Amino acid sequence: MKKAIVLLSGGLDSATTLYYAKAKGYKCLCLGFDYGQRHVREIKSAQAIARRAGCRWQLLKINLPWKGSALLDKRMKVRTIVNSPWSMVHGIPNTYVPARNTIFLSFALSYAEAEGADAIFIGANAVDYSGYPDCRPRFIEAYNRVAAEGTKQSKIRIKAPLINKSKKEIVTLAARLRVPLELTWSCYKGASRPCGQCDSCVLRKKGFREAGITDKAWKAE
Amino acid sequence: MKKAIVLLSGGLDSATTLYYAKAKGYKCLCLGFDYGQRHVREIKSAQAIARRAGCRWQLLKINLPWKGSALLDKRMKVRTIVNSPWSMVHGIPNTYVPARNTIFLSFALSYAEAEGADAIFIGANAVDYSGYPDCRPRFIEAYNRVAAEGTKQSKIRIKAPLINKSKKEIVTLAARLRVPLELTWSCYKGASRPCGQCDSCVLRKKGFREAGITDKAWKAE
Repeated sequence: MKKAIVLLSGGLDSATTLYYAKAKGYKCLCLGFDYGQRHVREIKSAQAIARRAGCRWQLLKINLPWKGSALLDKRMKVRTIVNSPWSMVHGIPNTYVPARNTIFLSFALSYAEAEGADAIFIGANAVDYSGYPDCRPRFIEAYNRVAAEGTKQSKIRIKAPLINKSKKEIVTLAARLRVPLELTWSCYKGASRPCGQCDSCVLRKKGFREAGITDKAWKAE
Repeated sequence: MKKAIVLLSGGLDSATTLYYAKAKGYKCLCLGFDYGQRHVREIKSAQAIARRAGCRWQLLKINLPWKGSALLDKRMKVRTIVNSPWSMVHGIPNTYVPARNTIFLSFALSYAEAEGADAIFIGANAVDYSGYPDCRPRFIEAYNRVAAEGTKQSKIRIKAPLINKSKKEIVTLAARLRVPLELTWSCYKGASRPCGQCDSCVLRKKGFREAGITDKAWKAE
């Protein structure tokens, strides 16, 4: 049986990616990170999703003492790109964590090599996204060369099956794959209910609306 | 003034790389890792070298729960490539830590982006080395594309100035740059004196001998 490491954040995209990998016949090992994000709500979601999917769950704690992102620094206000013309001008919102996906993929690569896995799945998405450079197809392509050159086996492939899908397409795919959407958490803030205002909430709402599917996560709280 | 992140392990190569970067006019921020290696002796060396060089020192603790290397797993015996025909056949010795340099570079990339640094220096070496895949020029080249594609600024370059140098050339360069060689630590084992038997010790001794320089680290203990 093919084996894969799946980066699982607890959000809609990574949960859909996990169920996609399972549907493709991979035995999935889920990997999540506690990297000092504003809330641990999404970590609990990730763990619940892994359990529901019947997959092993591994949480790593990492420390990024240099901050520089509103997701890590509680003194910074989460500025949105969707609602703020100012952020729009600057292109990349202040929720960007420097090289976050690079770090996540590096641990996944180490894990994959230690486990003899064939693939790493990441829910990166370049369409309805927030402009992060490490969510683009060219980044994934570049990382694939690192995976090939930097490991003993050179067989591990990075797969980003959602990278060219719209949020609408992702929600539709998730429904088809029976992803437990009510367990996913997308909001950048960690309140008991999604804020509905941050980039992540706005994109999620748009996706569900366009797919014509009710978002149970809003009701579940 | 140009700014660089320097990966500093406390060994001969990374210390020489730090002094090389300083000589090239970079303000250097040193980054080291406590990743569960067998001993913390090399971390203390790294810290002492950074202090001597007058550079900021940042230590990150990371956890690789999947082990798979004699450097992480105390139950495994450090097998050498230099002295063991068996290991030689297999090409890569069991001190290899899966994707270690990939992980180190990823944190350095995040740090570099947060600090607005221009370069990352790594003491990787492909000549008198132990056959690790993530020490080859092609790996550094691949990583440079990740750095360009995965960051906002796209200006950060990975520099591995020692990559094509022999240990003899490194020792000669270190002496010229006045690297405090007596503070460096190369041995894979963490005793009070270098073991003299492991790959790292054997390569170091060979380098000093061929350069015609006395290794004070052996006397300092």
